[in-house]
Amino acid sequence: MHKEPNIQKEMGFYLEQRKKILAMHYVDFVIGWDTQTDAAENSILANSEQAAVISEMSYNLTTDPEYERAVGVLYEHRDELDSVLRHEIEVVYKNIADTKKIPVEEYMAYSELSAKAYPMYVRAKNENDFELFRPYLEKIVEFCRKQTVWLATDTVKGYDVLLDMYEPHYNQAKYDKFFNVLRKKLVPFVKKMTANPTEVPEWTKQTFAKEKQREFCEYLRDVMCFDKSRGIMKESEHPFTSGFGTEDVRITNHYYEDSLVSAIFSAIHETGHATYERQCDPTLNGTFCSGGASLGLHESQSRFYENIIGRSRAFWQVHFGKLQQVFAPQLDNVTLDDFVAYINRVEASFIRTEADELTYPLHIMLRYEIEQKVIAGELEVKDLPKYWNRKFTEYFGITPPTDTLGVLQDVHWAYGNFGYFPTYALGSAIAAQLYHYMSKDFDVEASLKTKTTKKINAWLKDHIHKYGASKYPDEILRLATGEDFNPDYYVEYLINKYSK
Amino acid sequence: MHKEPNIQKEMGFYLEQRKKILAMHYVDFVIGWDTQTDAAENSILANSEQAAVISEMSYNLTTDPEYERAVGVLYEHRDELDSVLRHEIEVVYKNIADTKKIPVEEYMAYSELSAKAYPMYVRAKNENDFELFRPYLEKIVEFCRKQTVWLATDTVKGYDVLLDMYEPHYNQAKYDKFFNVLRKKLVPFVKKMTANPTEVPEWTKQTFAKEKQREFCEYLRDVMCFDKSRGIMKESEHPFTSGFGTEDVRITNHYYEDSLVSAIFSAIHETGHATYERQCDPTLNGTFCSGGASLGLHESQSRFYENIIGRSRAFWQVHFGKLQQVFAPQLDNVTLDDFVAYINRVEASFIRTEADELTYPLHIMLRYEIEQKVIAGELEVKDLPKYWNRKFTEYFGITPPTDTLGVLQDVHWAYGNFGYFPTYALGSAIAAQLYHYMSKDFDVEASLKTKTTKKINAWLKDHIHKYGASKYPDEILRLATGEDFNPDYYVEYLINKYSK
Repeated sequence: MHKEPNIQKEMGFYLEQRKKILAMHYVDFVIGWDTQTDAAENSILANSEQAAVISEMSYNLTTDPEYERAVGVLYEHRDELDSVLRHEIEVVYKNIADTKKIPVEEYMAYSELSAKAYPMYVRAKNENDFELFRPYLEKIVEFCRKQTVWLATDTVKGYDVLLDMYEPHYNQAKYDKFFNVLRKKLVPFVKKMTANPTEVPEWTKQTFAKEKQREFCEYLRDVMCFDKSRGIMKESEHPFTSGFGTEDVRITNHYYEDSLVSAIFSAIHETGHATYERQCDPTLNGTFCSGGASLGLHESQSRFYENIIGRSRAFWQVHFGKLQQVFAPQLDNVTLDDFVAYINRVEASFIRTEADELTYPLHIMLRYEIEQKVIAGELEVKDLPKYWNRKFTEYFGITPPTDTLGVLQDVHWAYGNFGYFPTYALGSAIAAQLYHYMSKDFDVEASLKTKTTKKINAWLKDHIHKYGASKYPDEILRLATGEDFNPDYYVEYLINKYSK
Repeated sequence: MHKEPNIQKEMGFYLEQRKKILAMHYVDFVIGWDTQTDAAENSILANSEQAAVISEMSYNLTTDPEYERAVGVLYEHRDELDSVLRHEIEVVYKNIADTKKIPVEEYMAYSELSAKAYPMYVRAKNENDFELFRPYLEKIVEFCRKQTVWLATDTVKGYDVLLDMYEPHYNQAKYDKFFNVLRKKLVPFVKKMTANPTEVPEWTKQTFAKEKQREFCEYLRDVMCFDKSRGIMKESEHPFTSGFGTEDVRITNHYYEDSLVSAIFSAIHETGHATYERQCDPTLNGTFCSGGASLGLHESQSRFYENIIGRSRAFWQVHFGKLQQVFAPQLDNVTLDDFVAYINRVEASFIRTEADELTYPLHIMLRYEIEQKVIAGELEVKDLPKYWNRKFTEYFGITPPTDTLGVLQDVHWAYGNFGYFPTYALGSAIAAQLYHYMSKDFDVEASLKTKTTKKINAWLKDHIHKYGASKYPDEILRLATGEDFNPDYYVEYLINKYSK
């Protein structure tokens, strides 16, 4: 009995502090968006000191002893909390324990480094000069390796520490098993499919005006029922989604005038992510439980829309006319079948984000294996370009002619996101599992005849999105499908689709 | 002797706190930029709570008792500080005193209101519906009136409180005197000049593609030697400049396809502001003394470039060819003389920002008189549209057909910037004073033959920009010209130019 007023007081403090921390999340959200879109190269470098001070302010909020004490008291009494707050407190409690393990000077120095690394990565990629980026990447790797030591527990060590950060409850044992299934069942199939690639059709070798691409991508956002008064689509080096709660969810795209479909699938992919964020239960706003439950689950949504819906014949049956109209007369002599065949064309290629659905997981396997070695200290940053090209040749039978088309293609390592890539393959596999169960509830292809993804959005909202981050991703998957993650649906889906 | 370690300690605290406060200025800078460019309408409304929390955090930093004590000690010992820090401490000391006079709940409520008022203002303007904006403006006016009470001193009262905020050491007595000079000498001249306006030439009534306008404006930024790796030019409802220190200085523009020159002069104007920010002494970064010394002095720079340089024959003599080239063949039959006559055409018109150099000060007089009445409580917000139209008709002989072309045209009141407008007229007048003295040092027109404004930039840097905000604006003007503000140069310049 005597404890109750104490909990009330600690709860009051917790809720006040949460407001401030969320405000700093909002600051990070806006500054992150700015850094990747509007801020000029030299401005970012000059303002990295501000970024460091802001990080320190956030760090001080989350490591405030009073806050820690409040979280500790609430954690002890977690059985008395409602299920959302209980989950939040469990996650925050773990985060505080983890944060305390990182020395504050290291954290600040790393924040400052991060602000400088991104523009330098962009330059290195544009100029095909790995050496420009190398010193930054070396420091990032050094920090990530240290993280695996600082954050190790009895059961989670080494690279597993990083994997668990991006996908809770996943580790090398599980990923190795997953990739082994793919290796065994998919690799031979992929080898057969890529042995004799079809020619790239002539009609794709035109110039497709940026403005028209943008117009069609805005049309696709409408098809996907995205509320544009709650988030714009802009341009950046690498397409991404960035959101704060359910009410401000933005995406970027990148238009290549020599590619008709690159921006189209980026738009569908990112709007998939954005739909997840938008469809969280709005009562989760103002808590730490809004937004996606994990990267893997997030990626399952973007992949679901991009591949299972966006590359289906049923989807283009209703939208190809509009595409022809926007790009008239460029596509006048192209048929629906030509187009669907093209967007599902299989071929070994250099760029992960441009890879077809079938070869995509091989790109992830490559990165997973490299990261394992880098974090274990078995591979150094200076040797990355060579190692990448050697392994790539082994898996794909072709050698990247430049680092821009090789080791420099992805932005993730510039952000220090080691452990992130495997969630992409996991996402594709979960998407297939969801598709299996969605198809039991209604005819997914037939629903596309309405010209929107309304019914699909509603199913995903009800089975995945509404939970936000109020549960762990494996728990949500079990609630949605009644079983644990099962990669068999993925292999089955791919072999079935590409055997046709 | 015993005081010295104390000063050292307080100085140390002050410098640490200044870093945090500057980081929050950076946050304001980025969030402000985002709100006015990328953030979607409904997102802004939804996130106004974050804005309020961030304001409170800033407020807590500047009202922290330890900080106040440190500033107090440094203020006592200001004679021992170098001149820049001394000026900074004097200004900070005054700001703290002023901030303490504003009740924290009022300050927070106002911050939240501000975040909501801007998108609603944009809607009201777009839909020509003053009533949408009215309730917000009423609250803003209420706050501004309260400010004049909270911040009143023995010598500064009423509207003077607001005027002094934007232009230190200026008040109604001085502005009344300035506007009286204009009224006496300029108004009869303007009446004569606008009596029989020339026809708008036919060649201006074409559609000028947005992309080409943007291209030419980017060319002008190069002409003005602006380093684009330190700030982009973007689009927004109302053109503005926003900078943080010397290393991140951005502008926006607004392209109207039915106007060839609107965006051109906005680009020159905003790049003028941006040049001021960029040319401050970089050692002032990381202090509160970077950036312009006052709005009036800032405006003198933008007006200098826009009107004195940008509307001169000498400028277009070297750049009109490029303009013709970008818009070819639209301007093929237009001569340099046609163009220069057009950009210096005089006519009574509705929109301040589109007004010619000669009628411009009348637009400011109107706003100055209205603000005087509103702040004095002699005019209420609900009566503004009617009053505006009546007064406008009296001064210009024409009546705004819509509020969009009348009382809703300016964004300033949506930001609560009462007392701001008079600095525009002051700026134009200071520009003429500077031009007088610059012309004594070198042949300004001849220097334009180099196709850049390099020599002009250098003179302004050396006479105005380098000081940043390390001195009061009247002090800088005396250093630059050897005399106090003198509106006679302005009248002389205008009558001389337009008599030709």
